[in-house]
Amino acid sequence: MEHTQSSTLPASHTLGALAEFLSAELVGDETCLISGIATLAEAQSSQLSFLANNHYLKFLTTTQAGAVILHPDVAADFHGNKLLHPKPYLAYAKLTALFADKPRVAEGVHPSAVVSDRADIHADASIGPHCVVEAGASIAAGAQLGAGSFVGENSQIGQNTVLCANVSIYHGVTVGAECLIHSQVVIGSDGFGFAPDGKGWVKIHQLGGVVIGDRVELGAGTTVDRGALDDTCLSDGVIVDNQVQIAHNVRIGANTAIAAGCAIAGSAIIGSGCTIAGMVGIVGHLTIVDGVHVTAKTLVTKSISKAGSYSSGTPMDESANWRKNAVRYGQLNTLAARVKSLEKLQRDPDAES
Amino acid sequence: MEHTQSSTLPASHTLGALAEFLSAELVGDETCLISGIATLAEAQSSQLSFLANNHYLKFLTTTQAGAVILHPDVAADFHGNKLLHPKPYLAYAKLTALFADKPRVAEGVHPSAVVSDRADIHADASIGPHCVVEAGASIAAGAQLGAGSFVGENSQIGQNTVLCANVSIYHGVTVGAECLIHSQVVIGSDGFGFAPDGKGWVKIHQLGGVVIGDRVELGAGTTVDRGALDDTCLSDGVIVDNQVQIAHNVRIGANTAIAAGCAIAGSAIIGSGCTIAGMVGIVGHLTIVDGVHVTAKTLVTKSISKAGSYSSGTPMDESANWRKNAVRYGQLNTLAARVKSLEKLQRDPDAES
Amino acid sequence: MEHTQSSTLPASHTLGALAEFLSAELVGDETCLISGIATLAEAQSSQLSFLANNHYLKFLTTTQAGAVILHPDVAADFHGNKLLHPKPYLAYAKLTALFADKPRVAEGVHPSAVVSDRADIHADASIGPHCVVEAGASIAAGAQLGAGSFVGENSQIGQNTVLCANVSIYHGVTVGAECLIHSQVVIGSDGFGFAPDGKGWVKIHQLGGVVIGDRVELGAGTTVDRGALDDTCLSDGVIVDNQVQIAHNVRIGANTAIAAGCAIAGSAIIGSGCTIAGMVGIVGHLTIVDGVHVTAKTLVTKSISKAGSYSSGTPMDESANWRKNAVRYGQLNTLAARVKSLEKLQRDPDAES
Repeated sequence: MEHTQSSTLPASHTLGALAEFLSAELVGDETCLISGIATLAEAQSSQLSFLANNHYLKFLTTTQAGAVILHPDVAADFHGNKLLHPKPYLAYAKLTALFADKPRVAEGVHPSAVVSDRADIHADASIGPHCVVEAGASIAAGAQLGAGSFVGENSQIGQNTVLCANVSIYHGVTVGAECLIHSQVVIGSDGFGFAPDGKGWVKIHQLGGVVIGDRVELGAGTTVDRGALDDTCLSDGVIVDNQVQIAHNVRIGANTAIAAGCAIAGSAIIGSGCTIAGMVGIVGHLTIVDGVHVTAKTLVTKSISKAGSYSSGTPMDESANWRKNAVRYGQLNTLAARVKSLEKLQRDPDAES
Repeated sequence: MEHTQSSTLPASHTLGALAEFLSAELVGDETCLISGIATLAEAQSSQLSFLANNHYLKFLTTTQAGAVILHPDVAADFHGNKLLHPKPYLAYAKLTALFADKPRVAEGVHPSAVVSDRADIHADASIGPHCVVEAGASIAAGAQLGAGSFVGENSQIGQNTVLCANVSIYHGVTVGAECLIHSQVVIGSDGFGFAPDGKGWVKIHQLGGVVIGDRVELGAGTTVDRGALDDTCLSDGVIVDNQVQIAHNVRIGANTAIAAGCAIAGSAIIGSGCTIAGMVGIVGHLTIVDGVHVTAKTLVTKSISKAGSYSSGTPMDESANWRKNAVRYGQLNTLAARVKSLEKLQRDPDAES
Repeated sequence: MEHTQSSTLPASHTLGALAEFLSAELVGDETCLISGIATLAEAQSSQLSFLANNHYLKFLTTTQAGAVILHPDVAADFHGNKLLHPKPYLAYAKLTALFADKPRVAEGVHPSAVVSDRADIHADASIGPHCVVEAGASIAAGAQLGAGSFVGENSQIGQNTVLCANVSIYHGVTVGAECLIHSQVVIGSDGFGFAPDGKGWVKIHQLGGVVIGDRVELGAGTTVDRGALDDTCLSDGVIVDNQVQIAHNVRIGANTAIAAGCAIAGSAIIGSGCTIAGMVGIVGHLTIVDGVHVTAKTLVTKSISKAGSYSSGTPMDESANWRKNAVRYGQLNTLAARVKSLEKLQRDPDAES
């Protein structure tokens, strides 16, 4: 018995059809058959390529691609079949959907899955092998649960949302429609809440849930904790890379992008349209407005009230040089005092100490 | 067949009963029925709230809460039902246990679980669907194994300890009583030990185990490696947030708290009662005494022999400013030399170079 | 039914046999029976120990070890049985293989596993309980799939490669021979690729795969994304610790070692024989040559074209001191200007501003 549908080779498309799909201007042979996408350097004659960065302009003279997506401004630099589009990178992104060959979980409930009688599984949903769905959970039409995934009590998985293999969703979690949740993601684990009692820690049971909007993507190994009292909330269109930690009661605005290895502490509020680069830390109980960009490995230690780009950290250097400068860092306050003292003497030479 | 017990709505409690539970002084209606806990801003008349931080004092005039836990010093600021307690935050923590609605794994061994004949499963333990328990493993009374969890050969899970869904426990691991191990936690994976042989790496098989005390909590996605020769050890009451890495032969003292995203390198010894903030790195083979606090994103590069607070890193700034200062960081040793030279000239103007 | 082979106690070996195995010079009783390895401080008379670091020389006078591996230069410092070897740490590493007691997954396909009719499972492979193997996948001779592991369509697992419990391998992934893949590892998840369309993000479906060479070890919770168009590639002998993130189209050269908590951004190319310490970040689209060492928590922001050691960051300090210096960091560019101004006045006192 097959538990995933057999994947077929992705269909080929004529260049004319692709031009129409993209609303791009076609220059060349509209019957040219395209069976895939590749970089300019690697493309074969049956493949389409694209130029999104003029750094790669030189490859236009040597590429074997059957056609290339170009900005109209550089159309003259390529003499083969071309699709002219004002945003070649966006055009490429849209085309990848046509050539994606992602296996689907077979429709229906796999016999090895353990599904509560009191769960609500839509007839068009797909529940993979060894999945577990608890009482009160609902799985909407078109949703897919990859092998070994767990959906806890009263949690809801929205329409066409895909959980890859081995995802863990605790109880009381809502995931919207058209989401993609990668393997080893955890949603709804306890927030890290404890009160000291003089001897040790008293656990603060986490009574809130998690609400995730539509079209959210969570990368492999990412964890999203449930709220302490209110819910942790990710808005529509939020995209999160691998191994990101989102603590209890964090709220993230629409279409914000968070790269791998970030950790966002409890009750932080992040606006919409932000881009958070890799390994950024955001401390708890602060607010970041819309449209903020934070560069890699920055620690955000205070609220950000103005859109713009923010950073912390020091530049990389050869370790031998770095070590000398690092030692001086520990003397910086003293150095500043010494400069101030020199300035004073400069202004008033008789003040010699 | 249901594999988790049906959860019921958490019971309501009279304010009088809650006052007794907390040994708090009740001012107001002891028959007031409380069905949950909420923040001052969100609470309804059937809910209890608390004031743990005077920053929120203003909400006392507008909250709809049926009762509020207050420090006696601010009792006069609220005119509704109140519970007076010297530590409102601790009182709140204790109350959450009464209102927690966490599903339990159903008692007994789920028919889909694969349990070795030579494993020792207590009659009052709960083994969820698709769990695997290997030969020689023992699961104590009241312990729960969430769906898809794995317990390897000769590993022991203590009384009332809970493994959430999809936890992986290797062979030769001991987890104490009353622990909470969140989804995707790994305990007992190999420490990262290799010796160079001039051509590549020779693996050092990790012959030790892991010993975890009682009342330990490990957050989602946290990993604890087995020891190279001796065991990796976490003492009683240690609390660890999500996505923390604990390397081979690390030893962590009682009641130490470690926030998300930390990595502790091999053979580091951390005292008891420490608090390690998020994304801290601790290099290997060093010792940190009891009562140390390390701030977020610090890299601990040497032993700490005195209780206190420790930090590294640079402050966040707008990227344009940050960049200018970061460039200067790479010139810091030279800058210090220039200041020294100015000082020398100041003292001895004839030493002009 | 047992699903792992019963482990037996590791065999004992005579010191003579161990000397022969290591090509070491034996001084003492060749019939001495050794049943394990321990540190000098912990070893019993039936155990072997080793001295790899002269820091521990003092233990030679008190150790109870039945025999010790020593460098010939310090042979005179120990009067018991000894094995003389030019590289005691390497000798220890080699010996661990003899004393490892790692459970194996039982041969054959466990009845609870769900294996596609169109998967190719070698007769000598071991597929553990609750595993899922999809159509077109192949599992080579001697390979072991730990409980709950998932291998997606058309993926290949090489000879003698071990997946521990709960590993997730997506479709179109190739893992070579003799690899060790720890629990909760994900290979083949989508790279983080999206194009902005002015309203939100358009997903770039990730059409490449992952190719992993022979003798690669991936630590618990590590994630390796599939390529956007080409493959993500890890060469033979690469060793990766826990919770490392390897983004799409990264290429890592042979025998490079990466410690826990690192994140490597898309299309970074890392040479062979590199050692990347813990929590290092490497930004995308750069190249690092062979033989580079990067110290803990460094952010690599540009290509490295020369072998050597590289660092970033600031030293740890008591928080009170650190805070004063950190404030000055934000004034560093101004401080440098002030020093320049003083120097100018020094050279030309009449230029008083």
